[in-house]
Amino acid sequence: MSTPVRLLVHGASGRMGRALLRLAAGREDVAVVAAVQRTVGQRVVDGIPHFTASELAGTPAFDAAIDFSLPEGFDPVLALCRGRGAALVSGTTGLFDVQRAALDSAAASIPVLWQANFSVGVAVLDELVERAASALPGWDCDIVESHHVHKRDAPSGTALALGESAQRGGAQPRYASLRAGDIVGEHLVQFATVGERIELVHRAGNRDIFAQGALLAATRLAGRPPGRYGLRQLLFG
Amino acid sequence: MSTPVRLLVHGASGRMGRALLRLAAGREDVAVVAAVQRTVGQRVVDGIPHFTASELAGTPAFDAAIDFSLPEGFDPVLALCRGRGAALVSGTTGLFDVQRAALDSAAASIPVLWQANFSVGVAVLDELVERAASALPGWDCDIVESHHVHKRDAPSGTALALGESAQRGGAQPRYASLRAGDIVGEHLVQFATVGERIELVHRAGNRDIFAQGALLAATRLAGRPPGRYGLRQLLFG
Amino acid sequence: MSTPVRLLVHGASGRMGRALLRLAAGREDVAVVAAVQRTVGQRVVDGIPHFTASELAGTPAFDAAIDFSLPEGFDPVLALCRGRGAALVSGTTGLFDVQRAALDSAAASIPVLWQANFSVGVAVLDELVERAASALPGWDCDIVESHHVHKRDAPSGTALALGESAQRGGAQPRYASLRAGDIVGEHLVQFATVGERIELVHRAGNRDIFAQGALLAATRLAGRPPGRYGLRQLLFG
Amino acid sequence: MSTPVRLLVHGASGRMGRALLRLAAGREDVAVVAAVQRTVGQRVVDGIPHFTASELAGTPAFDAAIDFSLPEGFDPVLALCRGRGAALVSGTTGLFDVQRAALDSAAASIPVLWQANFSVGVAVLDELVERAASALPGWDCDIVESHHVHKRDAPSGTALALGESAQRGGAQPRYASLRAGDIVGEHLVQFATVGERIELVHRAGNRDIFAQGALLAATRLAGRPPGRYGLRQLLFG
Repeated sequence: MSTPVRLLVHGASGRMGRALLRLAAGREDVAVVAAVQRTVGQRVVDGIPHFTASELAGTPAFDAAIDFSLPEGFDPVLALCRGRGAALVSGTTGLFDVQRAALDSAAASIPVLWQANFSVGVAVLDELVERAASALPGWDCDIVESHHVHKRDAPSGTALALGESAQRGGAQPRYASLRAGDIVGEHLVQFATVGERIELVHRAGNRDIFAQGALLAATRLAGRPPGRYGLRQLLFG
Repeated sequence: MSTPVRLLVHGASGRMGRALLRLAAGREDVAVVAAVQRTVGQRVVDGIPHFTASELAGTPAFDAAIDFSLPEGFDPVLALCRGRGAALVSGTTGLFDVQRAALDSAAASIPVLWQANFSVGVAVLDELVERAASALPGWDCDIVESHHVHKRDAPSGTALALGESAQRGGAQPRYASLRAGDIVGEHLVQFATVGERIELVHRAGNRDIFAQGALLAATRLAGRPPGRYGLRQLLFG
Repeated sequence: MSTPVRLLVHGASGRMGRALLRLAAGREDVAVVAAVQRTVGQRVVDGIPHFTASELAGTPAFDAAIDFSLPEGFDPVLALCRGRGAALVSGTTGLFDVQRAALDSAAASIPVLWQANFSVGVAVLDELVERAASALPGWDCDIVESHHVHKRDAPSGTALALGESAQRGGAQPRYASLRAGDIVGEHLVQFATVGERIELVHRAGNRDIFAQGALLAATRLAGRPPGRYGLRQLLFG
Repeated sequence: MSTPVRLLVHGASGRMGRALLRLAAGREDVAVVAAVQRTVGQRVVDGIPHFTASELAGTPAFDAAIDFSLPEGFDPVLALCRGRGAALVSGTTGLFDVQRAALDSAAASIPVLWQANFSVGVAVLDELVERAASALPGWDCDIVESHHVHKRDAPSGTALALGESAQRGGAQPRYASLRAGDIVGEHLVQFATVGERIELVHRAGNRDIFAQGALLAATRLAGRPPGRYGLRQLLFG
């Protein structure tokens, strides 16, 4: 077994942050060496030192930071990673244009990855969709996504991203959306022609998969050359 | 083995008519004793006497007529069935209101069945959908139908009929339509709530199933008391 | 809104018992008036009085007991329900023959229900499978069940029960089993003939559905005439 | 529009041969310039010159031969392609070892392709399965294939080939087989882990897809450098 990748979890008290700490504890390939959150009660929880955002400078050495926080906390963690020469995995939404530009700049000196959907299965599906589309010119392409009844936007962001991959492969996708029960998320990409059909489906059963995908991304990103990466690229590159 | 049901096929030269003659030849429970079509070449084809529409009076005794023709041919075949006391199975589309009323009147003296979709599987699905809906109040209901790219109307008539059955059971169905390849016809009715889901699917592989359903309907309708029947009722009644 | 059904939860500290208490709190059609478990710490938790097995006599009036405990606790709760004239819903496994006989005897004076699988969706599927089978003589019938990799028995008990329903309808089911990931439970019953196919699927997303089904069963069973009932019967009767 | 690829169809009177002639007539990218079959009645049918096996030397110039015949006819058509410098696409089954070796030798001077399953969709699925498996180490892999009730062997050859691709990607596939109705052929390859799942499905609706795949293979193979090719490689290479 190789040495675990040392992680700093930024935004440790949020839903994703808590999932990251819980799931990291069950993996041998990562070790959380610091948890950063807005306010800190106990200094050490389950053996993990906790820090506030103003105490970033005092965090121990780490190989990668995983950031699921808010735009206002993004600049400090990016600066920290640059300063330490560590990798940054971020899923923080709502970043400002200037922050996205800063991420691109940072990619000149450290490996960075920003991703909307951290499901490993969705990243694999995305790759498969583009490859299938490129090999099946002229086939009809339909994307059907199903989510719980509380989801407002349709088609889902993931469905649109899959559609873009299909388009890069040359297909012209159409979309349909179902809202039913408490479905976490299902995406079907169908390719059809006269006489045959291919259906590519991803089903998410719970939200832990996003945290697991972020942990996997961190293990694959740490130690890479500087640059901007995507989860799909880390899986297939 | 019981005696085969004697059939008159009306509209024998159309696509459905030809399928009826071909498929009846492979079944032991039916015997086509007369084929009626616009113009007749050979008088007897594969052992089946052929008649023109003006020769109806000369057709031999039969238990049931199966009619897939045009509205202008409907009145004579209905009158023939009444006169002979035979059952009538019809899938002729575009009937005028007065013809539909005549069908209702005829139901006082002979068993009649008019059906838009003669698939046995769709009739079964229709029954299941209504029963499921009635047992699952409050569950979300979605109907997804897929057909070949040449189909213009959406949702399909069958999807709408399934939706009406779901509504009779108390559900509020929503619809989605896919048009892809040469799909003959697929219908999914999904019921979902928090934590669980039921999917009821029908897949049609070819169009012979409609002729087979009409032949089955004729065997089940012949000899019944006068009245208006449906395929679903004959299957479950 | 009608008066909530008053429930006694027997086996309140087990996995199902805890789920019953948690989910009942979110429903307006039930009110847990007593929780019975082996040992009691706090006397009242979240407003619910707790009792040990030796304190059954002191429990308040209730309309139905829900029992997910162990065979050794079954006789007292059955006697309690008989004494109070209350309904009994039980999912306790491993009952001895003499206990099953006692359940039958009790059915002469109170409504009782014992069920292996309390999923509402599975009960509905079971009904649909039997009806479909009865309307589709000669169609091939296949049952495919998928569960997590830790499940040892195959086919699943639910698959076998669905198969028995298919057989009551006249079908001859064949079985296939998949063990993959952490699938809670999926059952597909397929009916196929030349040219068409029906697929009936149930997907369980989490285990709360079993507690929800037991709560629903209790609301439907309370106040019924004495007798032995099943969940399917309560949903369709 | 580029010049159509000139085809010689070898085994033109067999089921595949007839499908090739019929479907080629509807495509603009191919032109059948010669049909070879055991015995020839009319010399020209639908504008296509027909030849017997003993008249191969008299066939006109062609870019690719498509061979779906019998092992005894294989050597002459291979020699013809070598002599003409034309591509050879073959789906003839039951070749002897010495014939397979001859195919390998021929690959030094002409492009050749032998394939068990000519479905384009299956070839694409095969590629996707290997890629998915390679990106998803540790995920469970299950393959379910469904065919008509007359199919004797199980798992299907295609399922086994997909399984080999999954294994090349590092997965350990398990197999299940369904035999129902007149299903032409369906293959599901599922990858599952805790919390998520990918399902990759191919559905064949009719057998014309195999002839279409062979025609496509011929258009892609003609003009390539000498070598041994596969359909999947032509689609993705």
